[in-house]
Amino acid sequence: MGKTRIALLGFGTVGTGVWNILSTSKGEIEANIGEEIEIAKILVKNIGKRRRVEVPPGILTTDFEEILKDTSIKVIVEVIGGMEPTLDYIKMALESGRHVVTANKLLISKFGSEILRLAAENSVNLRYEASVCGGIPLINVIKESLSVERINEVAGILNGTTNYILSKMTDEGCSFETALAEAQAKGFAEADPTSDVEGFDALYKLRILSKLVFGVETNEDLIFREGITNITKDDISHAKELGYKIKLLAAAKRSMDKIVLRVAPTLVPEKHFLAGVGDCFNAVFLKGAAVGELIFYGKGAGELPTGSAVVSDIVGILRNKSTGQKDRKSTVDISCQTTEWSKSKYFVRFSMNNKTYDIQKLISVFESGNSRVSKMLKVEEAAKTSNVLLIISEADTLELRKALAKLEATFESVKGLRVLRVEDFEAEEFNPQILDAGNL
Amino acid sequence: MGKTRIALLGFGTVGTGVWNILSTSKGEIEANIGEEIEIAKILVKNIGKRRRVEVPPGILTTDFEEILKDTSIKVIVEVIGGMEPTLDYIKMALESGRHVVTANKLLISKFGSEILRLAAENSVNLRYEASVCGGIPLINVIKESLSVERINEVAGILNGTTNYILSKMTDEGCSFETALAEAQAKGFAEADPTSDVEGFDALYKLRILSKLVFGVETNEDLIFREGITNITKDDISHAKELGYKIKLLAAAKRSMDKIVLRVAPTLVPEKHFLAGVGDCFNAVFLKGAAVGELIFYGKGAGELPTGSAVVSDIVGILRNKSTGQKDRKSTVDISCQTTEWSKSKYFVRFSMNNKTYDIQKLISVFESGNSRVSKMLKVEEAAKTSNVLLIISEADTLELRKALAKLEATFESVKGLRVLRVEDFEAEEFNPQILDAGNL
Repeated sequence: MGKTRIALLGFGTVGTGVWNILSTSKGEIEANIGEEIEIAKILVKNIGKRRRVEVPPGILTTDFEEILKDTSIKVIVEVIGGMEPTLDYIKMALESGRHVVTANKLLISKFGSEILRLAAENSVNLRYEASVCGGIPLINVIKESLSVERINEVAGILNGTTNYILSKMTDEGCSFETALAEAQAKGFAEADPTSDVEGFDALYKLRILSKLVFGVETNEDLIFREGITNITKDDISHAKELGYKIKLLAAAKRSMDKIVLRVAPTLVPEKHFLAGVGDCFNAVFLKGAAVGELIFYGKGAGELPTGSAVVSDIVGILRNKSTGQKDRKSTVDISCQTTEWSKSKYFVRFSMNNKTYDIQKLISVFESGNSRVSKMLKVEEAAKTSNVLLIISEADTLELRKALAKLEATFESVKGLRVLRVEDFEAEEFNPQILDAGNL
Repeated sequence: MGKTRIALLGFGTVGTGVWNILSTSKGEIEANIGEEIEIAKILVKNIGKRRRVEVPPGILTTDFEEILKDTSIKVIVEVIGGMEPTLDYIKMALESGRHVVTANKLLISKFGSEILRLAAENSVNLRYEASVCGGIPLINVIKESLSVERINEVAGILNGTTNYILSKMTDEGCSFETALAEAQAKGFAEADPTSDVEGFDALYKLRILSKLVFGVETNEDLIFREGITNITKDDISHAKELGYKIKLLAAAKRSMDKIVLRVAPTLVPEKHFLAGVGDCFNAVFLKGAAVGELIFYGKGAGELPTGSAVVSDIVGILRNKSTGQKDRKSTVDISCQTTEWSKSKYFVRFSMNNKTYDIQKLISVFESGNSRVSKMLKVEEAAKTSNVLLIISEADTLELRKALAKLEATFESVKGLRVLRVEDFEAEEFNPQILDAGNL
């Protein structure tokens, strides 16, 4: 039986997962590809560091050149993360004729097209299943099974850390700060949580998915991004009153010849699958012209789930040495559009004095500005004030901004104005429903 | 640009879907595989029949030999269904060196191994993505991305018709008969619904999945199968009282060196993803050793979803002409076991006279026979009688049968005994919880 020698760059969580899976699934792998996979070298920063797994002496190295020079190594697996020095390593690996597997979302998001071109020029494969939603076999599904499906929408919970935080806040009624601290204590969030909680991580993944399903490069600057740091317990409980849960949703939608992309805390109907995605789980919703709605759910991170995606890529390359996966190219001219001009559904909340509350006048403030109100709920909060919760069924950002200015001008007592996006995942017919709990 | 000529056997719902997708996605397909796909011949029963789509005169034929003799046809797509004459057609197609795509679950379930061997002997591909869960790209995911994952469990809602009926009964409180009649009126159920409502359709699909994930052939006679024809409104409302929904679940689980398979109406926790699968949708749950839990959700039937799976297989074959997909072979010796001897979780319901109700005595009847009671709920029904609802956390069928006989012998007033299976999808710790609503 033959043997393929591979090298790991990095030996942290994901690298350890790859090592463990290749050891425990030896039988399955040999039966499947008809050869053995041997990890010949592992690039680390510190050879002497104590590790959770024991590796044969001599396979650890701090010198990338040593790996590059070993021509018996056919596949190089990058699980270091970040841009420096990984981008150079990957380029050198591809240029030297090695297949590359990477779990690096930042790198693929920013330099995917460039390094995929480099792979093609050198007749080698570059796979990156683990870069989006860890263990969910999403990228290869889009490239293989859905390769000719016309996908019009992709939306999902792409970041496990923020989903853990929001689930915690929803289920236990705790604050963002408390939930974040717990996520950090459990190792789900990093000491500096910026990339997760501000939506950067989800944005990188959305760009990768969006390139895959629409076949076009998107301009990162045109993607609307809002994190979850401002989400309060009140937001969550008010969303619940209207039948919604708040999720950090990354969404890309085709609208005529444009794609609109955004990452934002979003109200999702409580009964929708995505609302049921708890803990650190990830889920992705796709809508295809023929196939209809598809949802993929699984673990987005962790040693073994992410490791399994990396191993699946290694096996995929070894099974299909001759055939590189082709990336989709759009057959029509579509481009990325800023969300500023696109229509969306919104949740609006404010408190006001009961005396000045006038349902018809409130609705007309919004509707005169083309923001259609589809649900309204008044919840008495104290003796004199009420919370007003509205679902605006359709408005563009500028129209809505004007309506909100008019609202504050018309009703002096309006306070604590809060606006969040809503995603119902269906072409809902306009069917106004005015719920005035205060009068029930 | 080259052109691949293919033939369709059958031009019903799925065949029409394939025709429509190949027409509308022409651009995507050409960009993807670098050639055109032309439907050169379509085998039909009646050439003169009025059809929803117009096809060029001359491509319809009633003679399979005409297709077989046309050596310019490289791929034959079987969308007739049933065993006769499809099995012969597929064998002849493979023996004559044609790649075959089929949507036929009955055929793959019963003769999959035989015709896959025939395909391998003739160095052609046989693909059958559409045979299980229509549009969900499940089979190719298991064969490609999860090819070396050690899967320990697969369970799902594999039949859309029964899911429509059960959802209707749950949401609208109607009877099985009413829901079935509506499913028939909407075209979701056939005039003779036996295959769907008695669980045969789900069983065929479960056998296909089980062969794929465990790599072993299962003995159809050892698979427990129970349909939904006996499910009543009471079953559904009582399940709800304990926090469950009833779904027709097809499940296969690895237990040491055995696989246990069953198709049965099953109580699924209301909060679990599978409980949220409504309408005719399908969903499949997989549990892998490394990847953890995965769920795939989508449309299990219909012209376009099923057509899209067929087209995806055609494209898959044309992109990877040289490399046949390998089926998994188990690396350990596992075999199929009847559920009769295996442990499961159960829901038990009966009514009894309030006077004879004795909580400790009831529990001891079950526990003395090794059936552990984890939940018990007494709901007073009338002046003198109560419904008793129990969750048995673990029992094998024979132990439970004995306990139920003892129950009826001990309590004369016990009536309307009803037993259904429960699936919690997790290794629940034993944590008894006695809810006696009658005493609250």
